[in-house]
Amino acid sequence: MSVPDSPTHLSGMRARNLVLVLDAIDRHQPVTRARLAELTGLTKTTVSAQVTQLSALGVVADAEPVKDGGRGRPGAPVSVAPGPVAALGLEVNGHYLAACVADLTRAVRVRRVLVRDNLGAAPAETIDALGRLAREVVSEAAEAGLRPVGAVAALPGVVDQTTGTVSAPNLGWHEQSVAGLLRAALPAGIPLVGVDNEANLAALGELWFGAGADFGDYIQVSGETGIGAGIVVSGELFRGAHGSAGEIGHVVVDPNGPPCQCGGHGCLEQVAGQAVLMRAAGLDDTAADDDPVAGLLRLLDAGDARAHAAVERAGHGLGTALVAAVNLLDPDTVVLSGVHAALAPWLIPHAASALEHGGSRIRGGSPAIRTSGLARGAAVLGAAGLVVARVFADPLGLAA
Amino acid sequence: MSVPDSPTHLSGMRARNLVLVLDAIDRHQPVTRARLAELTGLTKTTVSAQVTQLSALGVVADAEPVKDGGRGRPGAPVSVAPGPVAALGLEVNGHYLAACVADLTRAVRVRRVLVRDNLGAAPAETIDALGRLAREVVSEAAEAGLRPVGAVAALPGVVDQTTGTVSAPNLGWHEQSVAGLLRAALPAGIPLVGVDNEANLAALGELWFGAGADFGDYIQVSGETGIGAGIVVSGELFRGAHGSAGEIGHVVVDPNGPPCQCGGHGCLEQVAGQAVLMRAAGLDDTAADDDPVAGLLRLLDAGDARAHAAVERAGHGLGTALVAAVNLLDPDTVVLSGVHAALAPWLIPHAASALEHGGSRIRGGSPAIRTSGLARGAAVLGAAGLVVARVFADPLGLAA
Repeated sequence: MSVPDSPTHLSGMRARNLVLVLDAIDRHQPVTRARLAELTGLTKTTVSAQVTQLSALGVVADAEPVKDGGRGRPGAPVSVAPGPVAALGLEVNGHYLAACVADLTRAVRVRRVLVRDNLGAAPAETIDALGRLAREVVSEAAEAGLRPVGAVAALPGVVDQTTGTVSAPNLGWHEQSVAGLLRAALPAGIPLVGVDNEANLAALGELWFGAGADFGDYIQVSGETGIGAGIVVSGELFRGAHGSAGEIGHVVVDPNGPPCQCGGHGCLEQVAGQAVLMRAAGLDDTAADDDPVAGLLRLLDAGDARAHAAVERAGHGLGTALVAAVNLLDPDTVVLSGVHAALAPWLIPHAASALEHGGSRIRGGSPAIRTSGLARGAAVLGAAGLVVARVFADPLGLAA
Repeated sequence: MSVPDSPTHLSGMRARNLVLVLDAIDRHQPVTRARLAELTGLTKTTVSAQVTQLSALGVVADAEPVKDGGRGRPGAPVSVAPGPVAALGLEVNGHYLAACVADLTRAVRVRRVLVRDNLGAAPAETIDALGRLAREVVSEAAEAGLRPVGAVAALPGVVDQTTGTVSAPNLGWHEQSVAGLLRAALPAGIPLVGVDNEANLAALGELWFGAGADFGDYIQVSGETGIGAGIVVSGELFRGAHGSAGEIGHVVVDPNGPPCQCGGHGCLEQVAGQAVLMRAAGLDDTAADDDPVAGLLRLLDAGDARAHAAVERAGHGLGTALVAAVNLLDPDTVVLSGVHAALAPWLIPHAASALEHGGSRIRGGSPAIRTSGLARGAAVLGAAGLVVARVFADPLGLAA
């Protein structure tokens, strides 16, 4: 329908232009106003007005003048501002809590991990502890002049985006409402802008803070006590119809295998999850430990037969699940994060062999299996990154 | 970069407007020029010029005048033209060849199936026979005033869209170049606009000619001698990084199962593919038969224990592969087509039970398993539909 240029219509157009200019600054920074006009097709006057507004919001700032390729006088470039506007990322894991503050340039400015056994703890208690950790990092960030304008929390379970409930059997959470608890626990003045699955946010963490941009389309397997995957297609997260795509932990890898909390038998989690792996190697997984796989790595280094058998079984199961994922999704790359990244040198040969035997003759090869350099920190970074993405998508909404 | 209104720029803009107007006609037909101007935001003069051009191309035509909701004088509506511009769909299956001509309203106007054993036949011979069938339907379509402006072929294998080669182990084709053979076999004047996987085109056939629009995001399993799946997300086919997404036939459902031509063991195809199913039920799958599953259906109706055991095993395997597909992709609906559609009443209970046991407690339920009403005709319709989509995306390119 054609609409006259009413004030409402104009303000919608201005908001869209603001996003357009901010996106161009993010991609091409440092960038002059003249170049921004070329990139966006907007007039220089419009660009200048938008830059002024973004500057007032604390989202962009003047950068050092740069020579324009030697072709003339130095321009007056702008960049995304490394403050005061910032993002708060939070994570609940079975064995730790994490919080970080990143600025809009996606630099991680403050980060804390609290080792804590959350398996079976009451949700309210766990989220209270997460809130205390959040207040610590926010207060530390304030000293650096940073003001988080929103928070996203990563949880190790299926997050139903319609009802806002979380099912995380490994934590003992069943259709748990979390938004209210999180809002109450967050430092004053920081809105909760999202709750998402740990594996989804780990894949986005890799995309924004790690090597994800070089991986093409990728499946990132996040191995913890539970196992999930984040699926990145054309630089975006593939979420499925109800937000629960990527549940690779419940792909059946051994139909005669042990029962799983999901109702199935022989799910990947029951073969390659952290707790199962540790027990199979003869180790105790219940004690909260700063690095729960350190003991397993020591046994592997020492050539312990039981540890090697456990890892071989896990690697083979992982490869079998990857056969399903690769045949169904056809990615460029498979990325391992979480405990599987720590165990990569031992796991990958077994997983790659199983993957190579499954359908690769038809596909003409198998995707490379890579390791996340962010290891266990990917999800909390992805959570902060999602806040940054929200600021870029709606600077007037969050940053103001 | 801002570009002056050069003639090239203007012609690009006109081509975009032409697509915009045609798309609005397709969605809202019959529709008046005045309403088209509202829908597209273009001026009435521009819309009239575009409609005149589309009319000259044979792509749209005047429809019966309709009263505009009683609000005034009758408008002068246009609709997509049911001719002369048309689309040729082709399909090679292990047991038959198919060809059809559809018009741009997606009405199937001519359709022929030739029962023929293509398993192990030389590719050139098979494609020659397909060419003869194509000439028959094109000549029959010409009598109805239809002129196919392009052809798409559905093949039962992995189509590498970069190299244009097809690997279809069940046909005995290995990295076979097919474009040249197809071009030589096609009736004169009909360009080959695409070659695609049978399962992908079956899913698109369901979307455009069947009930796909009601299925939300869906995975359509195409059961033949091989088994593939087409993945439809937000009304578009999900193809993966190299065009081979949806290879559900090589998801491992029984790690100790029989070897598969793909290099794996216990792939879904080895448990639920047509040839395996027939043999397990004690039937001969080698004879080309007008309806190869008719014999199996008779045995099932008669309560034959061996036939029921074969279908139970296939259904359970299908359900196990669907656990992987549903956990990874999170669709609204699973659709069965091909032989699995014919066997649906016997297969679905077993498949649904296996699916229900795999991860459904975490997901909060399982997607419905539906049956394609197009059964074995879906892929050839999807092939014709892809030509129609190409005409709508570039009316000046194909229809002219």
